[in-house]
Amino acid sequence: MKQVKVVLTEEEIPRQWYNILADLPTPMSPPLHPGTGQPLGPDDMAAIFPMNLIEQEMCPDRWVDIPEGVMEKYLLWRPTPLCRAYNFEKLLDAPVKIYYKNEGYSPAGSHKPNTAVAQAYYNKVFGIKKISTETGAGQWGSALSMACQMFGIECRVFMVRVSYDQKPYRRLMMQTWGAQCFPSPSDQTETGRKILAENPDSPGSLGIAISEAIEDMIGDENARYSLGSVLNHVLLHQTIVGLEAHKQMEKIGEYPDVVIGCAGGGSNFAGLSLPFVRDKIHGKEVAIVAAEPQSCPTMTRGPYAYDFGDLAMTTPLLPMHSLGHDFVPAPIHAGGLRYHGMAPIVSHCVKENLIEARSYNQLDTFDAGVKWARTEGYIPAPETDHAIAAVVEEAMRAKEEGKEKVILFNWSGHGLIDLMSYDAYLSGKLFNYDLPEEVITKAKETVAQYPKP
Amino acid sequence: MKQVKVVLTEEEIPRQWYNILADLPTPMSPPLHPGTGQPLGPDDMAAIFPMNLIEQEMCPDRWVDIPEGVMEKYLLWRPTPLCRAYNFEKLLDAPVKIYYKNEGYSPAGSHKPNTAVAQAYYNKVFGIKKISTETGAGQWGSALSMACQMFGIECRVFMVRVSYDQKPYRRLMMQTWGAQCFPSPSDQTETGRKILAENPDSPGSLGIAISEAIEDMIGDENARYSLGSVLNHVLLHQTIVGLEAHKQMEKIGEYPDVVIGCAGGGSNFAGLSLPFVRDKIHGKEVAIVAAEPQSCPTMTRGPYAYDFGDLAMTTPLLPMHSLGHDFVPAPIHAGGLRYHGMAPIVSHCVKENLIEARSYNQLDTFDAGVKWARTEGYIPAPETDHAIAAVVEEAMRAKEEGKEKVILFNWSGHGLIDLMSYDAYLSGKLFNYDLPEEVITKAKETVAQYPKP
Repeated sequence: MKQVKVVLTEEEIPRQWYNILADLPTPMSPPLHPGTGQPLGPDDMAAIFPMNLIEQEMCPDRWVDIPEGVMEKYLLWRPTPLCRAYNFEKLLDAPVKIYYKNEGYSPAGSHKPNTAVAQAYYNKVFGIKKISTETGAGQWGSALSMACQMFGIECRVFMVRVSYDQKPYRRLMMQTWGAQCFPSPSDQTETGRKILAENPDSPGSLGIAISEAIEDMIGDENARYSLGSVLNHVLLHQTIVGLEAHKQMEKIGEYPDVVIGCAGGGSNFAGLSLPFVRDKIHGKEVAIVAAEPQSCPTMTRGPYAYDFGDLAMTTPLLPMHSLGHDFVPAPIHAGGLRYHGMAPIVSHCVKENLIEARSYNQLDTFDAGVKWARTEGYIPAPETDHAIAAVVEEAMRAKEEGKEKVILFNWSGHGLIDLMSYDAYLSGKLFNYDLPEEVITKAKETVAQYPKP
Repeated sequence: MKQVKVVLTEEEIPRQWYNILADLPTPMSPPLHPGTGQPLGPDDMAAIFPMNLIEQEMCPDRWVDIPEGVMEKYLLWRPTPLCRAYNFEKLLDAPVKIYYKNEGYSPAGSHKPNTAVAQAYYNKVFGIKKISTETGAGQWGSALSMACQMFGIECRVFMVRVSYDQKPYRRLMMQTWGAQCFPSPSDQTETGRKILAENPDSPGSLGIAISEAIEDMIGDENARYSLGSVLNHVLLHQTIVGLEAHKQMEKIGEYPDVVIGCAGGGSNFAGLSLPFVRDKIHGKEVAIVAAEPQSCPTMTRGPYAYDFGDLAMTTPLLPMHSLGHDFVPAPIHAGGLRYHGMAPIVSHCVKENLIEARSYNQLDTFDAGVKWARTEGYIPAPETDHAIAAVVEEAMRAKEEGKEKVILFNWSGHGLIDLMSYDAYLSGKLFNYDLPEEVITKAKETVAQYPKP
């Protein structure tokens, strides 16, 4: 029998996260205080995040020990298997070997718990008793709910109202894990009440939800805020994915020619790819591909600039690819990829030509996802379908060029909670969305007001 | 770090299924032809099942080779890990070690693909091009849809209308895997059309759906019917679960004092437990516990007798515990446990005191399930919650008695598609259902018409 899964024993699981800041060939531009325009200091974030996570956000060490308390929870589902997709390969009929890391095995069904558990742990150690956060489609909110429950922390999630109403399942996951989930705008905050007074039927937005989550905890010294992507410490926690994969590939004597992940805020993509970006920095030949939606082409079309992380301009100015903090993406089903910005670390690596970004339209991604489900069994999340579309493209290229290729990608999560989107696709109700050039022009104007990184 | 998961490599996966018929201390009563009252011959089933599966149904061999074509698909998710539930143990604070086999890792989210893949394979080998089946909540229908897609067989699923309307997600899984799913009663069959003509709003029933599935394929020599539980060959395929678990326990030098599974038709319970029942037959001391709903207490209160497997009396007479083929269970959320009968093999083992049956009420099972989700992360299916309730009971008993105990149970599937039931539980909208003694009296009257096993 051909080997399908490469498993690590628990003894073999990596005991440290990898911090790429220690290896970058050029230093990253710092986040800036929006008021002063000066680099942000730890104290500027102390009201929002616990100090131990702020220190980690700015940590220069290459390797960061994974605390026992985090490892204990990781072991509930980690190490995840590295699998070879023989059936999908057969369908594509190209000279490629396709390996994927199955992060859908986690209790929440995606890679998100890798950082949720770590963040809950550090908050707990710092004495925090309540965490507030926002969520769009609910992947992040559900992962954090589970993590908070495991560490005995109260969790309050502000979920964009339109998702709260249309996608009840992730909300129900949060509640099953003991969290409180509010449709945002909510009656829990000044911001929410004001918006509801003006428009009782407001569908909400991620920007409003962030503002509510921050207002909900600010001023309470036992409470903090938590973010599921974009920031350095979030990406750090996710490197457990790539470190495991690196070890698994080594075990079978393989090394990828191409490493692929889908990218919204950048966390699952960076989680898999950063350990391979490190190899590339040290001279190894490997292509690293970030797959994003054509309707939200942050890296492929957005300028690299300082911009806010949220609509309400409450975050620091971050150096990143951005479509403008007021950009409203088309209603594609890959909710986790509908973000105007991109993690500063990923953006920096794109600028340094360490990472290549490509974009895919919605119909091609679902086409790839359905083909995957019908050969490999697992139904991918709509976000993950973007990575699979990139895999298909790589395979077709290899076929044309007659070159053998080893492809590794992050199967970031399953789509069992997103089946309505497959229904829409299969019944011909999904569309592609073109992004007019004016939007890019406007994005450039927006970020032109801020300093240049 | 304490070891949480015991993994098998693919080299270590069992290559044969275990057939308990070879080890039973007393022979089982045969299925009977309802017309003649005589034991059923292979030809009596030839119009319904392919001959290679009929032979397997009656096979006397202790070990049955798993074909390469089945193994290839098993390896997409098998071997599944055996996990120790340290966090749940801590919550229970009892002198027990709790191990569970996580069958929720399969693409369909339950143990059902273990037999779906095998049945699709054997049908393919026999030249079958179309399979019809019925499904209640959809676990079986979705697993078979995936398996048929993998072997290029057309799949037509008749899904009880009330589930089709209320639980769209499993139907969407079937469609994503390329199957056709019809709300039953449907316009696809004579039976369906007749019922619809009398009552256009008929909510359907499993009995109607079975009749439709059989009518849908009967007479087409390239088509067959498929069943997801109850029959010998189905239980045979599921023994892969218990054989893996047996090997995994051995690996860490453990042996269970108690083996637990929830039981509806009996397939996941038998899958885990039969290899341990074998040990028991050969003198090993081990308790084997089947957990069923108090509202559908087939083994704990139903007579052991010959009865039909379906409402329409189209199946052979099977020797089994039964609440009467016309019994309509209360609308509990564990849809997979709402079956009037029990697999003949399991029923026989209960009669032989090899297996002990216990029943649990709905609220206790959800209480156990929520506790599990909040400690171990994974949200269990409502069916699986019954096994967890039995685990809790065993742990509390061990605590009272001050005895150390090793518990092994089958975590048969996740509850991500059943979250509405958790919502109902958490908001106080779920109830227990008492089963009046009259129902049992009536069941005894029903089966009194047929021969005695």
